Amino acid sequence: MSPLAEAERAARAALTWVAEPGDPVMGALLRTCGPAEILAALTEGRAPRPGGPSGDGAGDGVLSGIPRLGRALQRWAARLGEVPPGAGLGAWQRDGARLVIPGDTEWPGQLEVLGEARPWALWVRGHADLRYACLRSVSVVGTRAATGYGVHVCGELAVRLAEEGWTVVSGGAYGIDGQAHRGALAVAGTTVAVLACGVDRAYPQGHYDLFRSIRERGALVSEWPPGRMPTRAAFLVRNRVIAALSRGTVVVEAALRSGALNTARHAHDQGRPLMAVPGPVTSAQSAGCHEAMREWGAVCVTSAQDVVEMLEFGADGPAGPRGGPVLARDRLDPVTSRVLDAVPARAGRGPARIAVGAGVDFDTVMRCLGGLAAAGFVERCDRGWRLRRAPQDSHVRRNA
Amino acid sequence: MSPLAEAERAARAALTWVAEPGDPVMGALLRTCGPAEILAALTEGRAPRPGGPSGDGAGDGVLSGIPRLGRALQRWAARLGEVPPGAGLGAWQRDGARLVIPGDTEWPGQLEVLGEARPWALWVRGHADLRYACLRSVSVVGTRAATGYGVHVCGELAVRLAEEGWTVVSGGAYGIDGQAHRGALAVAGTTVAVLACGVDRAYPQGHYDLFRSIRERGALVSEWPPGRMPTRAAFLVRNRVIAALSRGTVVVEAALRSGALNTARHAHDQGRPLMAVPGPVTSAQSAGCHEAMREWGAVCVTSAQDVVEMLEFGADGPAGPRGGPVLARDRLDPVTSRVLDAVPARAGRGPARIAVGAGVDFDTVMRCLGGLAAAGFVERCDRGWRLRRAPQDSHVRRNA
Repeated sequence: MSPLAEAERAARAALTWVAEPGDPVMGALLRTCGPAEILAALTEGRAPRPGGPSGDGAGDGVLSGIPRLGRALQRWAARLGEVPPGAGLGAWQRDGARLVIPGDTEWPGQLEVLGEARPWALWVRGHADLRYACLRSVSVVGTRAATGYGVHVCGELAVRLAEEGWTVVSGGAYGIDGQAHRGALAVAGTTVAVLACGVDRAYPQGHYDLFRSIRERGALVSEWPPGRMPTRAAFLVRNRVIAALSRGTVVVEAALRSGALNTARHAHDQGRPLMAVPGPVTSAQSAGCHEAMREWGAVCVTSAQDVVEMLEFGADGPAGPRGGPVLARDRLDPVTSRVLDAVPARAGRGPARIAVGAGVDFDTVMRCLGGLAAAGFVERCDRGWRLRRAPQDSHVRRNA
Repeated sequence: MSPLAEAERAARAALTWVAEPGDPVMGALLRTCGPAEILAALTEGRAPRPGGPSGDGAGDGVLSGIPRLGRALQRWAARLGEVPPGAGLGAWQRDGARLVIPGDTEWPGQLEVLGEARPWALWVRGHADLRYACLRSVSVVGTRAATGYGVHVCGELAVRLAEEGWTVVSGGAYGIDGQAHRGALAVAGTTVAVLACGVDRAYPQGHYDLFRSIRERGALVSEWPPGRMPTRAAFLVRNRVIAALSRGTVVVEAALRSGALNTARHAHDQGRPLMAVPGPVTSAQSAGCHEAMREWGAVCVTSAQDVVEMLEFGADGPAGPRGGPVLARDRLDPVTSRVLDAVPARAGRGPARIAVGAGVDFDTVMRCLGGLAAAGFVERCDRGWRLRRAPQDSHVRRNA
């Protein structure tokens, strides 16, 4: 890695301690100053210079256009002491958390929809490649106080979506969120939990085991640095990332004015497909779903099939033609490419045989297959895994 | 009544025996030939002449543009024998059924939305004036095989809508339909049942008592003549009238491919507001509601308030500004006008005192109040009836 890239990585890591995720002043500042320059300026007690460390100050006028910058700089400088020594990549990979920053191959490009509110960096913990995993992903969210109905419907939904090769993104909370993760895990699907605390923390504590399973089959993701406990405000800030990571958001159960509706609102504002599961009008936990349908045009979905139709026909997803792979084959890394070569076209093949064919170990095959399924290259079938067929319309185009 | 008007009335009555309601050939023929001419032609075994009995045959070319007219004329002529002698208005009013035809003051103008599929005539039985009753009306329909949930929600909905002065229109069937009528009746509201059999028949038989109550507080309506029993096809033909009579249609519970969805489809095709009550996605009886939301853009409604908002803001209703009376006061008949004069502006007054004030009997007051409420002039309150306040915006307009 070049020294410059190394400096940016270390600086972005430090910024996750220094500035609250979603801080609009930092978002505005990062538009004109590189993260390393911002960190250097904070450390040296001076104003950051637009254009990076070699900047000549000509862009100072730009900075004066950022409201409340002076107070923000003071606030961030006061928190420099919280950044642990050696907060660069190396230090934290020891704890199993890795830093993913814009420009990394693992960075999910669809986060660009957030504009200046894009995370400075993401802390990721888990076997899944975050970018692959989220290429074909759907957020399934809802209330902590789920009813038996909501839990049942959510589980069904997550199971079917995972079986169809969709990654289930949620917030790791009790109730609907937890059930969404569990449903995906039950069929060995990929699931991503976007947390409002450090990825080394289990919040809620009762989800300690669940989070361990998610790390094994997917990823824990956070904008907050390791060690951080969540605040009430953090959950709301976090919700924009849940919505932005996936192609669309499904609200399974939500009371009026609930956090899940906040996520729904983000999906709506981001122009991503928003869906809601209806329920009895007599249930307060479905009232938010019905409100989302009435007020924000959320589409009424009753099954995974409805959701997939909406995501694939909705067109405006972050990537890819309907049904086909969402990533060019020649952009796969060499190991994943070998695994893909070992997957048969029609009859299914088990992962152990694919491992032998690809010349890699079993764990690697499982991880690669998850990514390949999420990216639309392969699919599960009765007898294991097989190539996913090209959709009808691209077939027509090829012959035209 | 002029002899010409008398002849048209008798002819339209006869046509209800001769042609199946909704018959597109009769609809097309009535566009160019008056009903009396059609009946005369059938009786005399000749082709009808465009322009009525005095037509000179110059329009025969128009008739040749109606496909299958020859066979239709034969079919109708063969059924002339079913028309009872003296099938004019007089004969049937003895049985409590009256004929309402286009041009009558009681004819609901909103049926024009049906175009050529407009009923030739309606048989009406009950105390309510059909036109008044339907000025502020909403269709509430659903499956015969209603669940406990559906019955509960439907009853609540109908009660609240009737309390707000809305007439509840439905199809008189078991399940949701029956509950919709009962809800309105429970709060002495107005309700209209559109039947697929003669208005002297109780189909289903178990609704004999319900139909008697509907006659007392509303009206039974049918395109089929007295005495006729329903056919399977008749229910589907009837559904277009349920949708067309009201300002909007609410589907409370409906299975996929059910008759209630057929009514919903008519409302959608007529451009009237279509609403659906959500329910558990695990209930087959809510699947049609969810489909209507997804496929036809039915609005998700969870309460009478949602329905009223939709109807009053939906704007395209058959008549009237939001919330205000939908009929000019000077178009009221003299008795109704006297009753309206006896209703106080603020404090409520009971119907007995209103009867004394207006100098009419109690039954007349009750009938007039129903019509006045449906037309938006009066409203129920704790202590009886009072004038309905002009909506805020018309107040502003007056002062502007």
